[in-house]
Amino acid sequence: MKKERISNNVIRRLPMYLRKLDDLIYHGVDRISSGELGKQMGLTPSQIRQDFSCFGEFGQQGYGYRVTDLRDQVAGILGMHKGFTVAIVGVGNLGHALIGNFGFEEQGFRLVAAFDSDPEIYGNNIAGIPVYDSATLSDWLKRNPTDIVVLTVPRRIAKSMAETVVDCGVRGIWNFTNIELELGRQDVRVENIHFSDSLQTLGYFLSEQENMEKSK
Amino acid sequence: MKKERISNNVIRRLPMYLRKLDDLIYHGVDRISSGELGKQMGLTPSQIRQDFSCFGEFGQQGYGYRVTDLRDQVAGILGMHKGFTVAIVGVGNLGHALIGNFGFEEQGFRLVAAFDSDPEIYGNNIAGIPVYDSATLSDWLKRNPTDIVVLTVPRRIAKSMAETVVDCGVRGIWNFTNIELELGRQDVRVENIHFSDSLQTLGYFLSEQENMEKSK
Repeated sequence: MKKERISNNVIRRLPMYLRKLDDLIYHGVDRISSGELGKQMGLTPSQIRQDFSCFGEFGQQGYGYRVTDLRDQVAGILGMHKGFTVAIVGVGNLGHALIGNFGFEEQGFRLVAAFDSDPEIYGNNIAGIPVYDSATLSDWLKRNPTDIVVLTVPRRIAKSMAETVVDCGVRGIWNFTNIELELGRQDVRVENIHFSDSLQTLGYFLSEQENMEKSK
Repeated sequence: MKKERISNNVIRRLPMYLRKLDDLIYHGVDRISSGELGKQMGLTPSQIRQDFSCFGEFGQQGYGYRVTDLRDQVAGILGMHKGFTVAIVGVGNLGHALIGNFGFEEQGFRLVAAFDSDPEIYGNNIAGIPVYDSATLSDWLKRNPTDIVVLTVPRRIAKSMAETVVDCGVRGIWNFTNIELELGRQDVRVENIHFSDSLQTLGYFLSEQENMEKSK
């Protein structure tokens, strides 16, 4: 793999490629040209060739990409073989939904534990995952070094909880709290799920459609 | 508002601007220069000026943007004043979390009903929202024209449910099913929440960090 710095835009397209390639495999497609892949993904062929060239040479001129090879390469770049460990902090409805339905294993992650402060919730297993008391989180993380914490706690405790887990060696936070976490740590990565962004985008398009219909 | 077509990248940045501007208002900031806004958002000042110029002239040279005005303009462009109506289809843990915690009203949307096929779930109210039997969805939508459906149903029924609601006049689908919905309709907009994309991006950065530490 080349050592040059890869742009954020390319990195953010990798999961899209992975989804598309999984879909192609599911539909029995062996090979695909950058032209066809671009058409299906709304990207130009040169954009696709440029993206993949950041990571070395995958395709062959006039021959296209072998879908399973390309899929494995993209999965490898994303670190899916590394089996990063994950703990969920906050087992409300959203935390519950992620434990039960998200499929961490399929994505190459190992969900190992969940935490909640509600005595009605901790002490149980959900889909085979033990739920522990949040009061034991720090101790538990020190004994069980964990790569990623999924933050599905109420907003008001989001920042302090993030600081706690980072102090215990967690290096990745998957943040569902809709709070911008500014932790001031170069070695910690936060990825946010901002639900509202895509709903607002939907609002924009419906609004535009309405405006266009009115101006007809 | 200019009539020229606005690029998708600009549209996707609008909710980011809105979040940032809300945050600035919360912190009592009256005015901000494109330079400072850019610094805080990781964008260049010229990028910001270019984005806003798509919608007309907001700022004043050497004077910056008035935060509340800019916020109102962005909200207006996003159609937040239109009060688009929303129904949620699928009240599992995720649907439940969205009804209880998402805050549709704050975002300018009106959540009016939810639907589920489980007799244990329909017939109830959740946070003031009535939950009806999915079997009555088509009839209900015909009597109550609805702008947006939030799709939080199991994957296997995602496509047929999407087709049903589109047939009943719904023009926007907020899709949480992780299925790519190809409905072949120019007049229907689908926005997807792909949870896995951001987790995989997190995996990429942790993996890169590990590789760098090993190569030291």
